[in-house]
Amino acid sequence: MKRNIAYIPGDGIGPEIVREAKKVLDKVCSVYGHEFHYEELLLGGASIDAHGVPLTEETIKKAKAADAVLMGSIGGDAKTSPWYQLEPSKRPEAGLLGIRKALNLFANLRPAYLYDELRKACPLKEEVIGDGFDMIIVRELTGGLYFGERKTVEENGVRKAVDTLSYNEEEIRRIAIKAFEIAGKRRKKVTSVDKANVLDSSRLWRKVVEEVAKNYPDITLEHMLVDNCAMQLVHNPGQFDVILTENMFGDILSDEASMVTGSIGMLSSASLNETSFGLYEPSHGSAPDIAGKDVANPIATILSAAMMLRFSLDLDKEADAVEAAVAQVLEEGYRTPDIYSEGMKKTGTAQMGSLIAERI
Amino acid sequence: MKRNIAYIPGDGIGPEIVREAKKVLDKVCSVYGHEFHYEELLLGGASIDAHGVPLTEETIKKAKAADAVLMGSIGGDAKTSPWYQLEPSKRPEAGLLGIRKALNLFANLRPAYLYDELRKACPLKEEVIGDGFDMIIVRELTGGLYFGERKTVEENGVRKAVDTLSYNEEEIRRIAIKAFEIAGKRRKKVTSVDKANVLDSSRLWRKVVEEVAKNYPDITLEHMLVDNCAMQLVHNPGQFDVILTENMFGDILSDEASMVTGSIGMLSSASLNETSFGLYEPSHGSAPDIAGKDVANPIATILSAAMMLRFSLDLDKEADAVEAAVAQVLEEGYRTPDIYSEGMKKTGTAQMGSLIAERI
Ligand SMILES: CC(C)[C@H](C(=O)O)[C@@H](O)C(=O)O
Ligand SMILES: CC(C)[C@H](C(=O)O)[C@@H](O)C(=O)O
Repeated sequence: MKRNIAYIPGDGIGPEIVREAKKVLDKVCSVYGHEFHYEELLLGGASIDAHGVPLTEETIKKAKAADAVLMGSIGGDAKTSPWYQLEPSKRPEAGLLGIRKALNLFANLRPAYLYDELRKACPLKEEVIGDGFDMIIVRELTGGLYFGERKTVEENGVRKAVDTLSYNEEEIRRIAIKAFEIAGKRRKKVTSVDKANVLDSSRLWRKVVEEVAKNYPDITLEHMLVDNCAMQLVHNPGQFDVILTENMFGDILSDEASMVTGSIGMLSSASLNETSFGLYEPSHGSAPDIAGKDVANPIATILSAAMMLRFSLDLDKEADAVEAAVAQVLEEGYRTPDIYSEGMKKTGTAQMGSLIAERI
Repeated sequence: MKRNIAYIPGDGIGPEIVREAKKVLDKVCSVYGHEFHYEELLLGGASIDAHGVPLTEETIKKAKAADAVLMGSIGGDAKTSPWYQLEPSKRPEAGLLGIRKALNLFANLRPAYLYDELRKACPLKEEVIGDGFDMIIVRELTGGLYFGERKTVEENGVRKAVDTLSYNEEEIRRIAIKAFEIAGKRRKKVTSVDKANVLDSSRLWRKVVEEVAKNYPDITLEHMLVDNCAMQLVHNPGQFDVILTENMFGDILSDEASMVTGSIGMLSSASLNETSFGLYEPSHGSAPDIAGKDVANPIATILSAAMMLRFSLDLDKEADAVEAAVAQVLEEGYRTPDIYSEGMKKTGTAQMGSLIAERI
């Protein structure tokens, strides 16, 4: 099978982790007889350096033309990098937000689970971990406060800033459907998170989610307030299967959930549109402090590549093989520094990629 | 000293926990020779039952006339209580939001710390707990998404809901000043939390906080993005001293922080206006499932009463005495069920209140 992949190294550790994902995909291609063509694109800081802006029309056009986008990570050190001297709309993150919108990537899937092998790295006590946890956060990605109107004005000498949180029923419905579809293939439970005791947008959210739920009689729906959810993720993460929420709440809760697993270097993400097209990136950031040192964990990106095989390229068997190879390497005791514990085999970024590729 | 206290039992466990706080204050009065007059007011569900609305003009007027407000907790079981058949603006929580706004209680202080005696109840592993943690969240309470314009409309047959997040520099400045003042009496560090890579309101927030910081050269200011803060609270809570943030982020982060301590039944809160006036309530909710069973932990409310003595009644010595009595009872091994562990002495709500009162 021939496929075109847009390849975005990005900033910080981005280039070195996505390189390992490509190494693994190369092995997949040779074992399963596929041919992937990679088109390297600029986004974020790398695009600012080359073109003065974090996202160009060319990147959008070429990304759209591909079957999927595989990405490292975007952004630099906000305290020291010259990118952050620019006004907000010209910074690396604006490129990421821009490409999400331009490609209509409204569904952000962020799995967060505990690796049995990494229970030691989990910040939670054994009795809280219990039998472990395995959830996926389905975050709406192209609406809400992120893309509402905003302005900063001065009224009678007093500065004032306004952001707008808006959702319409179509935006809510399509992300809710994604969540229910995913739950159907998992443990059949959707927890929809909102702040319906305060926000109109949350009340509409709740209503539309209930309407969608009617079409999925075998799936249990529960509503949870966002403040309570932030507590429950620490108190009893095992209760969650699929968490469905809007853009800003999803940003906060998915980061909390990923840290709760203790293995943020292991967690993948997919951002999908209405078709099978998607952008795949690790759920962690660009960690500029450890860039270029061969210590970053490439597994989140490698697992994101597995998601790409599954969701965008329809190559389930190959995705399974990548996931199995990751599990095997962990079982054999290989660990990058972020997940290292005594008695394990300390491994660098490139070696980790090679070890996984070899096991496919 | 004679003082007038507005006394709001509230809903769920509210009446039984605030009764224990009053018991402790009665002892304070008899030992230190004060006279507190209590005026009982209705708010939330109790007010709906009596008057059909969650907040009346009378409650506002009488609360304003008092030196401080001592409160239990507001709200019922959203799934089963008839209050939740009413439209949102008529539900118990609307009373709480209404009184915050009517009394101009813009500064919500929520301490979150680990009790040495309760390390076992903390969900975090010993190595994450380290030397423990002791932070206070300073949450803006009368602005942001909570009090912005909102509407639900239908456009060409498509329902749409809009909420508005707005802050002006005066609102930001006064809460920032509170945070810096508090930090000055603590470990001299303010972490201001925002989402400045996305929101205009956060960018103004950051600017104004920086301006305020200039007047506090001995205090270290750091900015943190809200998603990162949600991670750091789990990863390394010991890094925080004072967290300063806007209304919605503060709602989410303070609940997360309180759960991270493992002792949510122990955490007090104060909501202050520009004067010494304030409303004091436990930072936990009304827990209708355990109401009336003499199992609720009254300590959060008792410590809120201590905050009232300190902040609104200028009775520092008396506040110290209450806090010391709580510490002593814990040392002696008394525990309500929520914080019970093997070998401790299991204690009910009323007995816990009496034990603390006796030690003053
Ligand atoms: C970089 C930032 C704009 C982005 C977001 O807030 O969505 C990031 O935190 C994420 O979660 O992908
Ligand atoms: C009950 C609710 C409206 C309230 C809030 O969101 O402020 C509560 O969660 C709190 O934190 O005091």
